[in-house]
Parts: sequence; C-alpha cells; structure tokens
Amino acid sequence: MAEFAEPIARLIDELRRLPGVGHKSAQRLAFHILRSAPEDAARLASAIAEVKARITFCSVCHNLTDIERDPCAYCVNPARDQRLLCVVEEPHNVIAIERTGEFHGLYHVLHGALSPLRGIGPNELRIRSLLERLRSLDIAEVILAMNPTTEGEATANYIGRLLKPIGLRVTRLAMGLPVGGDLEYADEVTLHKALAYRREL
Amino acid sequence: MAEFAEPIARLIDELRRLPGVGHKSAQRLAFHILRSAPEDAARLASAIAEVKARITFCSVCHNLTDIERDPCAYCVNPARDQRLLCVVEEPHNVIAIERTGEFHGLYHVLHGALSPLRGIGPNELRIRSLLERLRSLDIAEVILAMNPTTEGEATANYIGRLLKPIGLRVTRLAMGLPVGGDLEYADEVTLHKALAYRREL
Repeated sequence: MAEFAEPIARLIDELRRLPGVGHKSAQRLAFHILRSAPEDAARLASAIAEVKARITFCSVCHNLTDIERDPCAYCVNPARDQRLLCVVEEPHNVIAIERTGEFHGLYHVLHGALSPLRGIGPNELRIRSLLERLRSLDIAEVILAMNPTTEGEATANYIGRLLKPIGLRVTRLAMGLPVGGDLEYADEVTLHKALAYRREL
Repeated sequence: MAEFAEPIARLIDELRRLPGVGHKSAQRLAFHILRSAPEDAARLASAIAEVKARITFCSVCHNLTDIERDPCAYCVNPARDQRLLCVVEEPHNVIAIERTGEFHGLYHVLHGALSPLRGIGPNELRIRSLLERLRSLDIAEVILAMNPTTEGEATANYIGRLLKPIGLRVTRLAMGLPVGGDLEYADEVTLHKALAYRREL
C-alpha cells in the first residue's frame, strides 16, 4: 500500500521518458493530469495519438510533413529554387527561415547537431542522406544554417569538410551583433565575431 | 507554410497546459514524441487515458484511489487507528509517511498549501471537508504533516487555529536537523528550529 497504484506508477514512468523530465516533475505532471478535467486529459492523449497518426518526416528532406504528403510541400514545389539547399538542425528552424521570406530553395533537416558528450555522432544525424541528395541533385550552393552554438559550429565544420571535395559553394549564416542589440550588452564571443566578420561599407 | 501543421500545433498547445512547461519545452516534448517509436507514443497516450479511467480521489480523505474503491483502502481499513488523523498536502506525502511504518491512523489530503501569491486560499484546499470529518468522527489527535516550508507553515497555522476551539490535540511534525546531516551544512532556519525545539535527554 505504500506505493502508487499501478496506473499512476505507469503514467509517471511514461512521463519520465520525456526529455528533461525527472522523477519529481513526472510526478507533478501526473498529479496535474489526475486533477485536470477528464476532457483536458482526453485532449492531451488524443493530441499525442493524432500527431503520430497524421505527421511523419519527409523521406527526402526529413522535415515534418503530413502523412499523406511525402515528399513534403517544400520538396515537390517546382517554384522553389532547386539549386539552393539550406541545411538546418531541427524542423522548427525551417519555420524560422521561412518567416524571413528571404529563402526560396530546398531544405534538409539533420535532426540535431554533433555532440560527442551526448553521444550524437554523424550517424545519428541525417548526414548520409544529405550527401546522397547532393549527388543526385544539381545543387549550386549549400547554406549551413546550424545554430550559432559550439555544437552547431562543429556540425557545420564537419559537413563543410565533407562537401568541399564535391566542389559546390558552401556558406554559413553570418554571425555578429543581433539587430536592435547594444554593443554594451553583446557577449565577448559575439563581439569578436562581429569584428572578425566586419564588412566594408 | 511558415507554421507548424495543425496536429503539431495542437499537441504543443496541449503540452503547454502542463505545469512548468513553457512554449520552448512544449515544442521540445512534441518533437520528442514525433521522433519516438509509435509504440512509445501510444503507451504515453494510453497511460494518460487509463489513469483518468481507473484512478479517482477518495470522497472521504481525498487521497488517490482506484475508481472501484471509494472510500479508499485507508479509510475503510478497520485495523487503522480511527482516533488519529494525519493531514498532508499531497497524495505522495501519504506514501512517504506510510514508508516510515510509524503511522497507522487515517489520512486527509488537502491537495496543496495556502499560497496567496499563487491564488490558493482555504477554499482551494480540502479544509471544509476536514472540519466536517472531524465533526462526525471521534478523533483524538490531528497531526498536521504539512511541508516544512513557508506555505506549509502558514497552512498548518491556519488549520491549527480552526481546530483549537474543537478541543482536540493538534500536533505538527518536528523540525530540526535531518538525520545524517551535518551542523556545518545546516541552514540558519533549520538550526534555529533545532535549537528552539531541543529536547531533554
């Protein structure tokens, strides 16, 4: 009697598998679900089931797509520039880039960045399929749009070295001061990059 | 095309309703669910549905109980001391107290502690039903086993004041140095309590 009933223990157990959820927060989440209205819990359960039933990853670019639409809308859109390929870490990065309205080429989603500490090597990312795509497509430029983090940098450098022998143009997003920022509050590394990559007026 | 597809947006939305989950972590959890094996996601969804289908709160003590077992196993167990009532904040506190094997009375779960800052007043807790239980039962001692926090203290003091006129014994869990602790590392407040509540040998 001194333990949680089986359904509660099982829910806590399932919640603990989620990233960043330890035992304490799994317990807190489980109690929240227990106390919430039945409709709320049902909506959460059905949202989980439905996302798995309706969303998949594009077999070409690995971005999220409707299960009935593979390859995805970006991959099959003839209006998009077929000679430009933008490589990103995560599906939500595609959304951020689309919001700028500045890019009209194709995408490739790696699903992460190299991180030896967390056991993420090249085989954990969609790098092999990137190379295969580059062999079959007529791409002129690959934009490496990884995050401006150590892991993103390492990933961009790694892929850059792989792509060099192929002889296409490989670029990286500019780093520097954020628009609307203040020199006063820029960290040293950003300021260093802003100086190193300064442009002529 | 610059937003998440509807099922993903809906899942992120549902996850954000969970306590302590902001937009960024909801997004991270949603992507984790998207990437996980279909069986894993199905297990999580069914664990949520099942906990709501099988677990409820005891109508007497408000502890968790099987939906077919209300009042709960503690409330209907004649072997338990019917003159001792232990009041706790949360259902998992019952489990912690049961593990000690030291308490064999009845429980009452408040489902929280008073917290004006978070908008939790006496009406949000199961205090009225505690008073009703005390009127109908022949209780000799109420142990206020709230957490040793500001909110727990405030709750214990509030309930203590309500119970005083009834004329029964009201106790509070002892505060002091944790067993296995070190004076060196005890915080001031704990040390203060340990001194104030020192016992004769």
